[in-house]
Formats: sequence, structure tokens, C-alpha cells
Amino acid sequence: MVESNSSDNKGLAIVLLSGGIDSCVTTAIANETHTVALLHVGYSQRTQSQEYKSFRAIANYYDVPETRILTTKLDYLRKIGGSSLTDPNIPVDKDKENRNKQIPMSYVPFRNTHLLSIAVSWAEVIKAEKIYIGAVQQDSPDYPDCRAEYYDAFNRLVEVGTKPTTNIKVITPLLNMNKSEIVKKGIELAAPLHLTWSCYENNVIACGKCQSCTLRLKAFADAGIEDKIPYI
Amino acid sequence: MVESNSSDNKGLAIVLLSGGIDSCVTTAIANETHTVALLHVGYSQRTQSQEYKSFRAIANYYDVPETRILTTKLDYLRKIGGSSLTDPNIPVDKDKENRNKQIPMSYVPFRNTHLLSIAVSWAEVIKAEKIYIGAVQQDSPDYPDCRAEYYDAFNRLVEVGTKPTTNIKVITPLLNMNKSEIVKKGIELAAPLHLTWSCYENNVIACGKCQSCTLRLKAFADAGIEDKIPYI
Repeated sequence: MVESNSSDNKGLAIVLLSGGIDSCVTTAIANETHTVALLHVGYSQRTQSQEYKSFRAIANYYDVPETRILTTKLDYLRKIGGSSLTDPNIPVDKDKENRNKQIPMSYVPFRNTHLLSIAVSWAEVIKAEKIYIGAVQQDSPDYPDCRAEYYDAFNRLVEVGTKPTTNIKVITPLLNMNKSEIVKKGIELAAPLHLTWSCYENNVIACGKCQSCTLRLKAFADAGIEDKIPYI
Repeated sequence: MVESNSSDNKGLAIVLLSGGIDSCVTTAIANETHTVALLHVGYSQRTQSQEYKSFRAIANYYDVPETRILTTKLDYLRKIGGSSLTDPNIPVDKDKENRNKQIPMSYVPFRNTHLLSIAVSWAEVIKAEKIYIGAVQQDSPDYPDCRAEYYDAFNRLVEVGTKPTTNIKVITPLLNMNKSEIVKKGIELAAPLHLTWSCYENNVIACGKCQSCTLRLKAFADAGIEDKIPYI
């Protein structure tokens, strides 16, 4: 277990922690300079239960108390549908060719805005000054909400849409990193990558074939580091 | 019952309908030019059940089919707290003097962003081109998310945060109207004001004393129109 950086002279930062590699490394980065509070949002994504287990294991690794943990489940993204992540009738896209054509089928419409907005409301109440999100532009160039201009626009919204006494800012430390750089950064900061979950397709044992597994395996290979989670 | 404007040559608009006067009149305005789809969001506000009844009655009045209705409940705003609307330990502010000092205690942090974001995700999937929200700047000058600059910032976020093929815009037809103008507009468009709910304090019968009831009663009085709902 790594000690939580919770000394009194540090500012409070909320981290959006899904349970995947990117958000795990983002937690490690935020923990270097801030006292961290962790937010997990379930939205009926296929692998919600496994992601939640990873979230809890990582929160435990960083020794974050329950008062600094917020978990919630949204039902409306499932009701709205339109994504292979939330609609069981839309298949997970395993075809590499198709991935490069358009917005992937795993795109959940406007998803990051929902997650960030919950963090902003919580930040206003617990007086957090930063919100960390592990968005990566390079791996998701077709996701509109993984680009720098999206975060600039969101920060402008936070500036005008919260109490004048607050000064909350969204931070995206991984935005311009590639996946192997992220894995290396995680190792450097002793992030618990062995507790993370990436697969879009399965629970319990990762498929090794979906877009998310493929990116993860390539990142570990490029970084020359062993991925210690099991695969089918 | 007023006929729903659902002819094929009209564009689709999502209306955020809480069940209050402002959102009821906004529905009437949107219904003039668009086929309307209605969104109701419960967030453990004190009078959630009564608002939901009003929502259903108004949806029925406009003959909106279930395929164009989305209702959801959020649990996280209650968990986050910080508002008299969602936290039973924070009293509803009845003191007119206090109201003018700062942000009212009924302010729910960043609330409209949550409601609008749900509408944007739904709009992407059902291909709605407009989102109508009955925000009123004059009655809520201290709510950061009831000001024009907030909506400008939100529309910028929608522009960069959704698929490039979409063109979704948030419309605020009441932003610069006062409450009695809104009541008059509602009467003009045959909006079912008798089905609406405004009270922040009670269910079943309105208190007539809270900030929301006070504004409503004054608006009807100023407009010279009878408010047909019962009060304690």
C-alpha cells in the first residue's frame, strides 16, 4: 500500500477513477501533489462490476477514507443507448479497420461531461480545487470529449457556472501522452497497474481482443513491461 | 388537450420539463415550432414526487408518446448535498432578507449542467436539433447557471464535445422575461398552468410561503390572472 498524501497543507483534488490504467496513473499523479478524493461512476457499461472492483482495490491501495469516496450509478445512459458500451444490442467493435473510419461504436454520447459535472458539484461542496481526468487524445482521436479544446470549453463552463467563490479547474495530465508512456509513468509512481481493468467485452478475465485490450497489451509491450493481469 | 405538433417536416426539440411554470411555458413555446420530446430528471429534491406528477400531466396534455419521453432519477446530488433542495438538514430559506445576500441555500451546485448534459446525450441519439430550458435570469440572478454567459459557454461545449455530424443548440426562450410575462405568455399559448407545481417545501398542497411560491403568486398577481392551484 502506498501512503495517501493527505497532509493538511495540500489542496484537495477529485480524481475520476474508472478502474482502468489511465485513471489509475492519473490518481498516482494527483496523489503526488494533492490529497485525493475518488469518484466512480457506473453507467451500465458492459464491464461495470469488474471496473467497480478495480476502483475499490485502487482506493484501498491509496488508503482513501470513505469520506473522500463518491460512487454512483447512472441509469439514463443505458436508457439513451447509442453505444456498444451501454447497449447489449450493439456489438463491441473488434475490427481494426472499422475503428479508423468514424466515431467508434463504443463512443457514449457526451459521456465525459456527465462524469466531470458530478465531480464539479462534489468539488463545490467539499471545496476541492482540482479535478483530474485521465483523458488521452492520442488513443481516442475520434472521441470529441478527449480533445484539448473540449477541456478548454469545459473549464470555461466551470468558471461561469459555479459559485464566484470557487476556483475549480479540470486537469488532464495524460492528454498528450501515448499509452506506453502512461504505463511507464505508472511504474515510476508505483501505481497499482495490476489492480486495473481495461476490457470492454468481458468480466472476470479480459478478452485480449477488444479495442481496449489491444491498446493495453500494445502499451505494455512497447514499454517493455509485463502486464500481470490474466487474459483468456 | 392541445395537439402535439408532431408533423414530419418539423425538427425535433427536447424540452427540460420539471413540472413548474417556467418549463411548462417553455414546452408550449417549443411546441409551436418543433416536435417535442420531454425530459424529466429527479434528483431527490424535496418535492420530487409532486413535480413528477405535474410532468406526467403536462406530457399527457401535449399528447407526447412514450418514445419521446425520458425520465430518470439521479442519486448523486443527494449524496453530494450542499443544498436545501436535496439535503433535509438544510432548511428552506423563507427569510426574504437572507435571499438577497448571497447564493440561496436552494442552489444545487452545477445542477443545470447535469440536466442539460442528459438532454445532449439523448439529442445525439434521437437526432434532436434543439434543447429548450426554461432558465430565467431575472428571478435567479445569483444562480450562476441561470445567466446568458453560462448558456454561451454550454453551447460552446456542445459544439466541441459532440459528434461533428450533429448540430445541437440549447435555447433559453425565457431568459430575459420576468415571471408575470412568463405567465402571460403561457396563457397566450394555452399552456396548462393549472397542472404545474412550484413549491419547494411541500407535496400535495403548496405552502405559499417559500421563495418559489412567493415568486409564483406575485407573478400571477402582476399578470392579473388567477392561480388555480390550491394553497395551504
